[in-house]
Amino acid sequence: MRARSRLQTLQEELPKHKLGALLIGHLPNIRYLCGFSGSAGLLVISDRQSEFFTDGRYTVQSREEVDGARIRIQKGKSAFAAVIDWLTERKGVKRLGIEAAYMTVADREALDKRRGRGVRIVKAPSLVERMRMIKSPDEIAKIRAACELGDTLLRPLTAALKPGSSESQVAGQIELAARNGGADQMAFTTIIAGGKRSALPHGRASPAAIPGRGFVVCDFGVILSGYCSDMTRTLHVGRPSTEARRVYEAVRGAQQAAIEAVRPGNTVGEVDAAARKLLQKRGLGKYFTHSTGHGLGLEIHEAPRVAAGQTETLRSGMIITVEPGVYLPGKFGIRIEDTVVVTETGCEILTKCPKELLSV
Amino acid sequence: MRARSRLQTLQEELPKHKLGALLIGHLPNIRYLCGFSGSAGLLVISDRQSEFFTDGRYTVQSREEVDGARIRIQKGKSAFAAVIDWLTERKGVKRLGIEAAYMTVADREALDKRRGRGVRIVKAPSLVERMRMIKSPDEIAKIRAACELGDTLLRPLTAALKPGSSESQVAGQIELAARNGGADQMAFTTIIAGGKRSALPHGRASPAAIPGRGFVVCDFGVILSGYCSDMTRTLHVGRPSTEARRVYEAVRGAQQAAIEAVRPGNTVGEVDAAARKLLQKRGLGKYFTHSTGHGLGLEIHEAPRVAAGQTETLRSGMIITVEPGVYLPGKFGIRIEDTVVVTETGCEILTKCPKELLSV
Repeated sequence: MRARSRLQTLQEELPKHKLGALLIGHLPNIRYLCGFSGSAGLLVISDRQSEFFTDGRYTVQSREEVDGARIRIQKGKSAFAAVIDWLTERKGVKRLGIEAAYMTVADREALDKRRGRGVRIVKAPSLVERMRMIKSPDEIAKIRAACELGDTLLRPLTAALKPGSSESQVAGQIELAARNGGADQMAFTTIIAGGKRSALPHGRASPAAIPGRGFVVCDFGVILSGYCSDMTRTLHVGRPSTEARRVYEAVRGAQQAAIEAVRPGNTVGEVDAAARKLLQKRGLGKYFTHSTGHGLGLEIHEAPRVAAGQTETLRSGMIITVEPGVYLPGKFGIRIEDTVVVTETGCEILTKCPKELLSV
Repeated sequence: MRARSRLQTLQEELPKHKLGALLIGHLPNIRYLCGFSGSAGLLVISDRQSEFFTDGRYTVQSREEVDGARIRIQKGKSAFAAVIDWLTERKGVKRLGIEAAYMTVADREALDKRRGRGVRIVKAPSLVERMRMIKSPDEIAKIRAACELGDTLLRPLTAALKPGSSESQVAGQIELAARNGGADQMAFTTIIAGGKRSALPHGRASPAAIPGRGFVVCDFGVILSGYCSDMTRTLHVGRPSTEARRVYEAVRGAQQAAIEAVRPGNTVGEVDAAARKLLQKRGLGKYFTHSTGHGLGLEIHEAPRVAAGQTETLRSGMIITVEPGVYLPGKFGIRIEDTVVVTETGCEILTKCPKELLSV
């Protein structure tokens, strides 16, 4: 039922943008609109009906999953060719919208070559991305459940985090616990980065050993019922130095300041600025080398970007991460990240693990 | 050294295609050419030099990894903008090649808007993909090692495969063993599909229980030192029926026939046909709903496609999968897959787990 109503919402949008039809190839958008969770398909939405094109690998799965669109299993021709044939049968479609942010130049040219006379191909606005930005109560419940599962991974994490174990082994224990908790899969490559490697903001778990003393950045998320969680905690092995404590508290303060800036009416740029300002005050601004966060849902990164200068206004139902970090090259790095849902008055933190400096 | 020589090889190709420079955005191509393994960057190759553009998250990592290209860390402008600025400084570049199969329509338009006068943007041929298709001895050694690690996962797999356990739990045990064996990560979402779900060719491990009796398709791969393995074995829980044995032997025969067709000079289409012909003879042709295989290396799917009608000729050093399958909707499915390297006289199977029908 939900998938059908999303398709209807989108159908009603088309005439406003003078689109006779919209071609959706980005798989998370397809899943959002009609429920299909496989790895190959195209969805065409016209003002009257929707058709989903896939291939023989997905005959059974598409019948089980797709709601609100007619299913077409292609044999012997490409999905693109099938879409064009479908369009030319419907003479009414003069303007076909495409997803410019996802369609490749090669696919665009293939479409151009095969389109019927009179069909114009135009860049559609980010209609689906904007729908997805505001989560439904059902989606919020799913992301909440994913974050709850993510929270349970802190215990196996701290148990596994022993000097001499490899980062990969630690990641393996988290990932096993996620699987046992029912995760579809991890939401992204688990980051376990110890010692000097913690200064790599994207230090994917490697064969490197957990150090005898130092920070370990642990950034992980699960996908549960299709929806992502995302959390970072930076733990310390052994006794932290005075500098380590100082920088940790600065990052923690910045994260708290950013969370306090998450409320309807504020822009995402203001959330970023809140974290950045506090780190700048402590002389750490130049070591905060990435943006403050991102939307998440069916994808681990989706709209809005929570970055400097971004003007999107926060609205109730948005779900974003808040994750400032400080990275001192050759020394250490610290990042603290929560997933939060924007409420009517502020936000609720969905990742509830403690954020005090934890030594293991 | 190796990365430098790949860049040099590519630089020598540019004049043949009348390209003043080539813009590479596809991350596996970037990794192949200059060694960078992060998640954001652009590589520009001109006939004289190469420059790698990334952002502040990758300052340390790019210095550690990038070989043969000058590193430019962007601040305050997009990598695209930086690439254009770089190009306009070099008046000599009249034709900039792009990767049409990867660049999005939106990025192409952004590039168009910002390009300097006199710079023409053209679709480049798949130069890097064609280089990557023939693996170097070092790459073959890495894929061999990945496949060896993959082979060791059969034991934890059979140990975990118990009626009533969830598919996810089984996947978790494989994935933990992969991590403990040093895998960077899994090469794709692990497929564990039991009972009727085995008839879904892409049945990702789910909360569904392993059945008391029936087939379980197990398709998994690791990434080790950046390179993928890929193997499918279909195990049987309990005693297989006569029909189950018959179909299993048909798939096994088809897989063997396809492997025997893998030798230099044959086309990939002939490999596909060898498997398909045998299944058609047994009346199972219409249940083989996908292609026979794909190249693999830095990516789990890369050139060549091993599919009906494809004309690419096999050459020594190519690495492909051979994976026919039969899927009887509502009943069961079977797939048997090996990763093989094309040799001077035929092929060598890199995934060495037994393929006899195994009951657990």
